[in-house]
Amino acid sequence: MDVKAAVAYEPGKPLVVETIHLEGPQAGEVLVEIKATGVCHTDAYTLSGKDPEGLFPAILGHEGAGIVVEIGAGVTSLKPGDHVIPLYTPECRNCAYCLSQKTNLCQAIRATQGKGLMPNGSSRFSKNGTLIHHYMGTSTFANYTVLPEIALAKIREDAPFDKVCYIGCGVTTGIGAVINTAKVEAGANVVVFGLGGIGLNVIQGCCMVGANKIIGVDINPSKKALAEKLGLTHFVNPQEVEGDLVAHLVELTDGGADYSFECIGNVNLMRQALECCHKGWGVSVIVGVAEAGAEISTRPFQLVTGRVWKGTAFGGARGRTDVPKIVDWYMDGKINIDDLITNVMPIEQINQAFDLMHSGKGIRTVLTF
Amino acid sequence: MDVKAAVAYEPGKPLVVETIHLEGPQAGEVLVEIKATGVCHTDAYTLSGKDPEGLFPAILGHEGAGIVVEIGAGVTSLKPGDHVIPLYTPECRNCAYCLSQKTNLCQAIRATQGKGLMPNGSSRFSKNGTLIHHYMGTSTFANYTVLPEIALAKIREDAPFDKVCYIGCGVTTGIGAVINTAKVEAGANVVVFGLGGIGLNVIQGCCMVGANKIIGVDINPSKKALAEKLGLTHFVNPQEVEGDLVAHLVELTDGGADYSFECIGNVNLMRQALECCHKGWGVSVIVGVAEAGAEISTRPFQLVTGRVWKGTAFGGARGRTDVPKIVDWYMDGKINIDDLITNVMPIEQINQAFDLMHSGKGIRTVLTF
Repeated sequence: MDVKAAVAYEPGKPLVVETIHLEGPQAGEVLVEIKATGVCHTDAYTLSGKDPEGLFPAILGHEGAGIVVEIGAGVTSLKPGDHVIPLYTPECRNCAYCLSQKTNLCQAIRATQGKGLMPNGSSRFSKNGTLIHHYMGTSTFANYTVLPEIALAKIREDAPFDKVCYIGCGVTTGIGAVINTAKVEAGANVVVFGLGGIGLNVIQGCCMVGANKIIGVDINPSKKALAEKLGLTHFVNPQEVEGDLVAHLVELTDGGADYSFECIGNVNLMRQALECCHKGWGVSVIVGVAEAGAEISTRPFQLVTGRVWKGTAFGGARGRTDVPKIVDWYMDGKINIDDLITNVMPIEQINQAFDLMHSGKGIRTVLTF
Repeated sequence: MDVKAAVAYEPGKPLVVETIHLEGPQAGEVLVEIKATGVCHTDAYTLSGKDPEGLFPAILGHEGAGIVVEIGAGVTSLKPGDHVIPLYTPECRNCAYCLSQKTNLCQAIRATQGKGLMPNGSSRFSKNGTLIHHYMGTSTFANYTVLPEIALAKIREDAPFDKVCYIGCGVTTGIGAVINTAKVEAGANVVVFGLGGIGLNVIQGCCMVGANKIIGVDINPSKKALAEKLGLTHFVNPQEVEGDLVAHLVELTDGGADYSFECIGNVNLMRQALECCHKGWGVSVIVGVAEAGAEISTRPFQLVTGRVWKGTAFGGARGRTDVPKIVDWYMDGKINIDDLITNVMPIEQINQAFDLMHSGKGIRTVLTF
């Protein structure tokens, strides 16, 4: 079938919105009509060419929501008409990782996903017979896309696509980092580095579980008002702190953060996030994705005296199990997505959406088809 | 009173065994007759002068066992005749750290302990009127020493001093790292870097909790036989591994260690210990003490994909609560200490005990008075 997609032909070049060819779903696969998709920094990272695993040409996009149109042979958990959110971290419920009950990093289709292909080793996308790669197993920058059954979370039908698409990445990553990875408890003091599309969701996750001090660190003071609406209690602009930022944060938290989150991808901030944690028990979670080759460092004494350094991918969420719950939370008013989606525009304006993200204005742009 | 002690007068110089003066216990303090003490790498580190917090002159030693001789005003939990193990990590049960239930790092007397003084800011040791510092709040290289009540674990009276003194540091650090910090479960695959006085106790801790593969990494093949007696299943000599050690360990553990322990204090090995852990859930625990200024590094991707980096001090043990239990385990035959104490000699030969430790021959030397 012909589909409308934004194609990434070359690193660093604008996307081209055009008609390309999509084959129907094969065994275990599902054809989904994408109704809305967010634009995330990870898409921009790959498009920039800095992602060593980036492949071109490709259909980017990994934060979508849509409707099942057709199912391939053997698909049992979904049927046409079901509303779904694509999962770049699938949940097969059968691999050693899923069965470990210790991680959300299902490995069932990882090898082919990393090569921009479907599990059987081929692509469904092409243009004039030339292969176009899938991306993160999702490729939501197209009005129709094909995904494996295990990479789709079935959600309730009354949830608006142009809001809950954000749950496909940013919302779940931020809230999941709080509840699945750090397991923040009521009364905890928390420091969040970076108040963008992930950090703000960390903030509201901390607020939801009853954290005490929720401290946001960002050099952009325009982030403060929205963060406060989501539960922020203290805004710290590093450029306005006299002396050492870590010492300031330790003082502000009466000895250090019980939990800290790095939501930017800067290895220097990851160190500060660890070192502002409380001696004896502080846990620092790396959420941001650092540039290839960058390394984190600290004195081992930081860990020997009780701090814990960990990370999270997709907020530790098992997509098919957890994403529908988070959709419920949004529909129940427990979490705020509306205020975080600051722009909605048609897919034709996708390059402007990237420009908006790089400008730091607004939080999330959602594209509709 | 006059006591016999091994005095560290200067960094890098042999200890001097001689008679010095000890004042009796003040309020909240206890006079203990030390019957046996181990010699540990931490004593050697401070004696070498590399410890930036080392103070001289001092009475070193932190791995002892003895009998209460006299109690100061207000001491209620101990009486003369009680058998005790000194605790360099005290347990006051009242400070914010003790009450957090998240750490063993009691801070009640930390400030003065770090200055080589008793909690009221003075020393009980002197020679011809010149102050001699306490060390780690314990100073077990003397046949009598004074400690705060909160820094003494009361143990059963049938436990032999020249064995259970080792529980004052090495045994508890190794076994505690397994059961308190990593919380290794039955069936886990474990990698232990360094099969010395700590690593061997990690091995037997892992064996005790039913670990599956227990892999020891050491460049000294003479460590293998004893490690196997304690539960080691695979010995890896890095000098005999072709290619990358981390890749070899990942293969040996079918994808990576569920838990790893660095028991040497080498930041390069700390990195290897983290990176040989299983994607998704592997936990690496730093037990060894690195040199001042040394830093650990890794790519944040290691953490984002689910590995956890933590550390432990005194094995996460709350001394007054946990040390008596470990003494019971020894007396019940659940853990082996006898084979780890490879030399016993009188305090007069303490400098030979240090030489023995540096030579790598034997595991632990215990000094008796």
